[in-house]
Amino acid sequence: MQKTQEYILKNKDRFLDELFELLRIPSISADPKHKDDLLKTAEWLKLKMESAGVDFARIDPTAGYPIVYAEKMIDPKLPTILVYGHYDVQPADPLELWDSPAFEPVIKKTKIHPEGAIFARGACDDKGQMFSHLKAFEAMVACDELPCNVKFMIEGEEEVGSENLGIYVKENKEKLKADVILISDTGIIANDIPSLTVGLRGLSYMEVHVTGPNRDLHSGLYGGAVANPINILCQMIASLTDENNHITIPGFYDKVLELSKEDRAEMAKAPFSQEAFNKSIAIPKESGEKGFTTPERTSIRPTLDVNGIWGGYTGDGAKTVLPSQAHAKISMRLVPHQNSVEISKLFENHFKSIAPDTVSVKVVPMHGGEGTVVPTNFPAYIAATKALEKSFGKKPIPVRSGGSIPIVALFEEVLGLKSILMGFGLDSDAIHSPNENFGLFNFYKGIESIPYFYDEFQKIKK
Amino acid sequence: MQKTQEYILKNKDRFLDELFELLRIPSISADPKHKDDLLKTAEWLKLKMESAGVDFARIDPTAGYPIVYAEKMIDPKLPTILVYGHYDVQPADPLELWDSPAFEPVIKKTKIHPEGAIFARGACDDKGQMFSHLKAFEAMVACDELPCNVKFMIEGEEEVGSENLGIYVKENKEKLKADVILISDTGIIANDIPSLTVGLRGLSYMEVHVTGPNRDLHSGLYGGAVANPINILCQMIASLTDENNHITIPGFYDKVLELSKEDRAEMAKAPFSQEAFNKSIAIPKESGEKGFTTPERTSIRPTLDVNGIWGGYTGDGAKTVLPSQAHAKISMRLVPHQNSVEISKLFENHFKSIAPDTVSVKVVPMHGGEGTVVPTNFPAYIAATKALEKSFGKKPIPVRSGGSIPIVALFEEVLGLKSILMGFGLDSDAIHSPNENFGLFNFYKGIESIPYFYDEFQKIKK
Repeated sequence: MQKTQEYILKNKDRFLDELFELLRIPSISADPKHKDDLLKTAEWLKLKMESAGVDFARIDPTAGYPIVYAEKMIDPKLPTILVYGHYDVQPADPLELWDSPAFEPVIKKTKIHPEGAIFARGACDDKGQMFSHLKAFEAMVACDELPCNVKFMIEGEEEVGSENLGIYVKENKEKLKADVILISDTGIIANDIPSLTVGLRGLSYMEVHVTGPNRDLHSGLYGGAVANPINILCQMIASLTDENNHITIPGFYDKVLELSKEDRAEMAKAPFSQEAFNKSIAIPKESGEKGFTTPERTSIRPTLDVNGIWGGYTGDGAKTVLPSQAHAKISMRLVPHQNSVEISKLFENHFKSIAPDTVSVKVVPMHGGEGTVVPTNFPAYIAATKALEKSFGKKPIPVRSGGSIPIVALFEEVLGLKSILMGFGLDSDAIHSPNENFGLFNFYKGIESIPYFYDEFQKIKK
Repeated sequence: MQKTQEYILKNKDRFLDELFELLRIPSISADPKHKDDLLKTAEWLKLKMESAGVDFARIDPTAGYPIVYAEKMIDPKLPTILVYGHYDVQPADPLELWDSPAFEPVIKKTKIHPEGAIFARGACDDKGQMFSHLKAFEAMVACDELPCNVKFMIEGEEEVGSENLGIYVKENKEKLKADVILISDTGIIANDIPSLTVGLRGLSYMEVHVTGPNRDLHSGLYGGAVANPINILCQMIASLTDENNHITIPGFYDKVLELSKEDRAEMAKAPFSQEAFNKSIAIPKESGEKGFTTPERTSIRPTLDVNGIWGGYTGDGAKTVLPSQAHAKISMRLVPHQNSVEISKLFENHFKSIAPDTVSVKVVPMHGGEGTVVPTNFPAYIAATKALEKSFGKKPIPVRSGGSIPIVALFEEVLGLKSILMGFGLDSDAIHSPNENFGLFNFYKGIESIPYFYDEFQKIKK
C-alpha cells in the first residue's frame, strides 16, 4: 500500500475541499424541508463514486430517501467488503449555540486538535467518516493496489431509524453478498489510544402526549381543579426511574445480558478518568445506575433519557396558562438480548398504565433498533486490529460503545454478516450537538487506515 | 338614568365599532416587539376619553408602558369613583388554535351566546370590559346624568405584573383620592346568574432553569452516566405536590386563611355543576387538593401549576440528545394572608434544596401579587348589588374568584380604598386562551349596569 499512501498524502488538500462541498449540503433527514438537500447529496455521492473508479454507481429509490449503491468487482475469488455509511445528518438546532454556522465548514484549532478540526454538522457523523472510504478507495484504484472487491451502500435515513434500509437489505440479499461489512461511524478512545468498537446499544425512541382540558385554560380560574398535563407528565416521567436510577418499567431488565465479574474486570482495564470525563462536559458530578461505573453505564447497561419536552407557554414573560397538552420525546438505549420492539411495547403499556384518569395519554413509538456485539476472534476483526496497529503504531483496544447503529444487528440477521466498527471519531466531537467537529488527524488517519484493512483482510482470507 | 340608557341603546352599534378598533391593536405587553402597539393603544384611549367628555386626559409615562389617566370633577362634594382597567393583553399563541385571527375581531354565534360574541384577544380581558366604562361615562355625560366625580386609570402592564402601576399609585396618592375603586376585569356565573367577585387569589410566578452538561450530548455515548436535566426537572416538579395534591413546599400553607365550616357551607350554595364543568373543558375527571370541592379549589385554596416547560429537541422526528438544559415556568395562586414575596422565597429555597448535586439550578421570580377579600357589607358593595339587580333583574351572588388582580391588594394598602369587582365575563370566555371571546349580551350589560352603580353609589353616600 506504499503507492496508495503516497497518493493520499499528495491529494489530501483536495480530499478536504471535497468533504467541505459535502458538508455544505444541509442533508437533515428529520426535517422534511430538507428533502431536496438529501437528494442533492445522493447525486453528489454518486458522481464522486463514479470518478473514484467504481464499476457502476446508482441511486436506488426507497419509500424514503434513496440509497447510493456502487460496486467494483475485480475478481470473484477475492474477498468482498461491503462499506456502509450514511449521508444524512442530525438537525443542527439549537442554532444559536454554534460558534460558526453548522453548514459552513471551517477549520479551527482546539486543545484536543492542535492541528485543526473541521467544524460542521456531519463532519464526524457520518459524512467525514463515510467520505474517508471513498477517498481510500479512490487512492487504491488510482494506484492499482485495490486488493478486494468493494460494494458501497450509503443511506440517507440513519438519523431517523434506517427503516427503508432494512427493507432494501431484505430485498437485495443477493446483490449485497460480501465477506464482511465495514463501517466508520464510531470512535477511538483518543488520538494516541486507538480502539475498535465491539458492542453497540440498541434504541427504542418514543413520543408521548398528555392531554388534559380541550384548550389552554386560565390558571387562575381553573388552577387547582383541573389536572395540569405538564405536572402530570413530569410525575409520569419521574416515576420511570427510582432513587437508584433503575428503570421501573416492569420487565425492562428481564433480558439484559449481565456481564460476568471477569468481563467487567477486563472492561475496567481500558483507560478512563472520571475527573477528566466530568471536566470535559463541565458537570459537577457523574450520575447513573447504582452499582456500575461510568464506562459500564454508557455501554453494558440500558438507559432512559428524555430527549425533549415541551408544553404550555415557553416565550418571554409570564403567561398564566394551564395548558391543554404536554409532550416529550423519550428514548431508551438497550443492551444485547433486549429487543427494541418488545421494549417499546413494555414502555407503551407501562406509560399508559401509570396515567391518571384525569388526562388522556398517547404513546407513539418513533424508531428503534437492536444492539450488537462484535466477536474479537474472527478474521475481519484480526485484520482490523492489524490495520490500526500499522497506522497508529499501537494495538487497538476493544471497547463497547453506548451509541446505536441499529442496522448492524439487521445486517447480521438478514445478510449473515458481521460488521467491523472501525470509526475514527472522538467523544469530544460533539456529534448531535452544536459545534460538531472532526479532527484533521482523524479524517486523514481514517483514509490511511482503510487500505491497510483491505490489505490485511485479503491476506487473512487467502 | 333613563336618558342615559336610551343613549346607550341608540349608540350601541357605534360602541361596538369602536371596540373593534381597539381590539385590532395587538397590545401584547409580554412581547417587546409590540411596544409601538401599546403606545398606540394608550394614545387611542386618551382621544376616546377626551371625546367622551373628561376634564382632561393624559398619558403618564412610567419605566414601562404608560398609564392613561383622565378625570371629570363635577362637584367636590359628590363621591368620586376611580375606574381601573388595563389596555394590554396576553400573548395570542398558540396562534394555530385560533379559528379566526386573534387581532381581527369578528362576531360569531355560539351555544352560550346565541346573540353573538366578539372573538378577539382582549375582547373580554380587559379591553371589552374596560371600554364599557368609557362608553357608560360618555352616555352619562352626554345626557347630563353623571352623578359622581370620575377618575380613570388605565394601565398597560397588567398581564406582566403591574410593577410600574404600583410605583405610580404610591407617587400619586393625592391625585388618586377617591371613595371607591371600580373594576370590571372579572366575571359573572352565567348570563342569568349575576354575581360580584368578593375574593381574588394572589400570584407568585417563577422561572426555573436546570443545567447539566455544558453542551447537548449524544444520548448514546453519554446516556446513563450523566444526569439528564429534563429527567431531573421532571423529578423536581413531581416532588412539589404529593399524592393528595398538597403542595410540599415547607411553610407553604402556614398563613393560608382556613374558612370556617359555615363559610364553606355558604359558598356551597352557589350554583355549580361538576358535570357541566368537566364537559365544558372536555376533561375525563376533575382533580385537585383532597378534601375540597372544585369551587373551593379554584378560590379559597392555593395552587401550583407548571405554565410552560421546554428543553432538548422539540422538532419533528427523533433526535437522540441528552440536553444541556431544561426550563419551566411555574406559578402559584395564593389565598388571603399568603404573601407573594414570602411564598416566592419559600419556593426558591425549597426548589434549590431539592436539586441533586449533579446539576445546577437557577430560580428567577418573575412577578407576584397579593390576594384580596371584598367585604359584602360596605356602601359600595351594596350599591353594586342594587345596580346589578336593576340591570339583570336578579340579586347578584357574592363569589370568590381564582384569578388574580394583584393591584387590588396594593390599592387598599396604599390608597386605603376597597375595590368593587364588577365584571361581566363568563368562565367560557377563554381569556388567556385561543378564541377568547366576550358575549354581546355581556358587553352591553356592562355598559347598562355601570350608570346604575354610579347612581346607587351617589344615593347611598348622600
